[in-house]
Amino acid sequence: MSNYTITSLNGGLANVKGFFCDAVNVGMRPDADQGDVAFIRSEPPCDISAVFTSNRFQAAPIKHYQRYPKDFQTNFVLINAKNANAMTGQKGIDDIDTIMSTLSQKIEVLNPVMSSTGVIGYRLPIDKIISAFDKLDFHAKHSDKAARAIMTTDSFKKELAYRVELEDGSHFNIAAICKGAGMINPAMATMLCFIATDADIPKTDMEHLLHKSTEYSFNRISVDGDTSTNDTVMLLTNKLSTAYDKAVFSEVLNKLMFELAMMILKDGEGANKVVAFEVKGAKSDEEAKKASTALSNSLLVKTALFGEDPNWGRIASTIGASGVECDETKLTIHYDELLIYSDTFRELDKEREESAYKIMKQDQFTVTCDLGMGDGAYTSYGCDLSYEYVKINAEYRT
Amino acid sequence: MSNYTITSLNGGLANVKGFFCDAVNVGMRPDADQGDVAFIRSEPPCDISAVFTSNRFQAAPIKHYQRYPKDFQTNFVLINAKNANAMTGQKGIDDIDTIMSTLSQKIEVLNPVMSSTGVIGYRLPIDKIISAFDKLDFHAKHSDKAARAIMTTDSFKKELAYRVELEDGSHFNIAAICKGAGMINPAMATMLCFIATDADIPKTDMEHLLHKSTEYSFNRISVDGDTSTNDTVMLLTNKLSTAYDKAVFSEVLNKLMFELAMMILKDGEGANKVVAFEVKGAKSDEEAKKASTALSNSLLVKTALFGEDPNWGRIASTIGASGVECDETKLTIHYDELLIYSDTFRELDKEREESAYKIMKQDQFTVTCDLGMGDGAYTSYGCDLSYEYVKINAEYRT
Repeated sequence: MSNYTITSLNGGLANVKGFFCDAVNVGMRPDADQGDVAFIRSEPPCDISAVFTSNRFQAAPIKHYQRYPKDFQTNFVLINAKNANAMTGQKGIDDIDTIMSTLSQKIEVLNPVMSSTGVIGYRLPIDKIISAFDKLDFHAKHSDKAARAIMTTDSFKKELAYRVELEDGSHFNIAAICKGAGMINPAMATMLCFIATDADIPKTDMEHLLHKSTEYSFNRISVDGDTSTNDTVMLLTNKLSTAYDKAVFSEVLNKLMFELAMMILKDGEGANKVVAFEVKGAKSDEEAKKASTALSNSLLVKTALFGEDPNWGRIASTIGASGVECDETKLTIHYDELLIYSDTFRELDKEREESAYKIMKQDQFTVTCDLGMGDGAYTSYGCDLSYEYVKINAEYRT
Repeated sequence: MSNYTITSLNGGLANVKGFFCDAVNVGMRPDADQGDVAFIRSEPPCDISAVFTSNRFQAAPIKHYQRYPKDFQTNFVLINAKNANAMTGQKGIDDIDTIMSTLSQKIEVLNPVMSSTGVIGYRLPIDKIISAFDKLDFHAKHSDKAARAIMTTDSFKKELAYRVELEDGSHFNIAAICKGAGMINPAMATMLCFIATDADIPKTDMEHLLHKSTEYSFNRISVDGDTSTNDTVMLLTNKLSTAYDKAVFSEVLNKLMFELAMMILKDGEGANKVVAFEVKGAKSDEEAKKASTALSNSLLVKTALFGEDPNWGRIASTIGASGVECDETKLTIHYDELLIYSDTFRELDKEREESAYKIMKQDQFTVTCDLGMGDGAYTSYGCDLSYEYVKINAEYRT
């Protein structure tokens, strides 16, 4: 791979050439200081690729997107919070057309797309959303406002930007805003992510790299194992920088999306710690993935993490229950570098239990399970399950 | 099917001819009023069938059981709480041999079997367990003590007995003790169930009917979706009654195990309500099972039940995420008899929301989802997820 220099920037989407964004509050959200309708706009129109939820009940904005011909260009993404426009049938799609037709009277739009998050099963409040068009500044670069407008149960905004300089001195910018909280697998309680770049990336690379990076990032984290009707990751490029190098772009996109995924996990509903579940020595990568995902999704493991209980029994039991080939005489388990289970070493002495407990007190640590059966490996990331998760989800709608 | 009369009896296992049981506290459990070592004994020796956990790391007592030849008879089941004897390797099996060899000096035992529940990864305290043999009354019929001794996080004992009179005037007795709490699928946080009968059931019927009833009962309930190393269901018969009718016995066994399963669910860790998730109109029974199980396992659904939130959005989203074939224009959802979602009826008015809320306030209700795609049907049973579940599981080991 060519060398490159990557610089982290403040200001999110504002750093990307030709992209504009803003948000306003139209009364869907009680706190008037936080927007509930936002947009991302590109001048000139941009290429777009998207990964959508695998939920069979895809929301209206996703169906609306899919009506456009393959390889369409757009110049406008409209986003709203508090209402998912999901399970709203054909009317939900028609509502988007109505909204976009009003928008086109305010500003020139090309194949505008929409993205929504919020409660399932209610029609969009069209009048409120349309009222935003008189208040939004279509030439602003208010990334912070947009990032805050798309939040639901998120406790902090998720916004990143990089400047990437290639060996030949050319550079491109890439930035993203994102929301998460209770969720998994471009999936649930809705995850939305909008990535804008001015890199000169060909359309074929966009599709491929966006899917690859999604597997590497959002599809490896689990808050609650659920998959929403609205989850969306979008990559937009207007190619205003002529810079591009496929290997570099792929690495940068991985990094950007992985960092966003970790931000989502840290902000998992009620979560206090992020844990990497590294499974190796499995019969195959698929088996490793199965065991690793079982660990990051297990309620018993999640509550043990919250309780900072160093007992490895729930880890072992969850691996056994996942259905992968394993053998208790070949298994080893580490918390960070500390061996806590092997065939010859099963009962924790007080000293080792104390060390394990110290590791578990951290905000972040790694559980490594070597199955000793082959070369398969996979790492997924999870968080603990606290009282707060139950509270947030029991009271969400009120 | 022949007519029969079934009578519910007090006294649990004591009602079954030739079965004896007792329990004592040997100091594994702090509360001296509750036993931690129990036995079930039959005179004469009895036939035995068992269903064990699908967890790959089966505990030592299960491996010990599996060493006996097929169709063996036994006269003694020893049970302990507080220590699962799981992930203890060959030593865990040897420990059982040591214990049973001491037991055989106190009473004549034939192929004795053991069953354990508790923490994973620690050797059994052999001396404590052996000390029970001087205190247990091997000729007692203390079913209540045995039922209470096998409890872990259970908040009430689970014990049932029936007298079944056949058309010809002959009768048999069947009784069971059981423990559950956080668990699913003869599976997790350990479920143990011991069923004793004096019916004249042939060995071939035992295997078949026990598996069938397990599918019908314990395998349809979900507390936390986990599967333990120790889960066990055992059926014992000494045939002291000459009565037997296959169809009647099958129906009675279903009823007994289903009632025990509902008791487990009602006592799910921190659970306040039991919900039946009936899925019908699926492409196939397998698809119906997939959707139904997804509902009873979903964290978002469970917390919505706890919050008594009548929004059907999480139900619909979970079905969509389960991967079954479905279509939002064909789906209908009912809470008990109340329609809360159909293609022409999506937004709940205040009145219907109030009715839905009243249904959800109940201890028990049914969510029926008709997918409108075919004839497949399946019902599973789940419970809500409360603060209490997190508390119990975060603090379990201490």
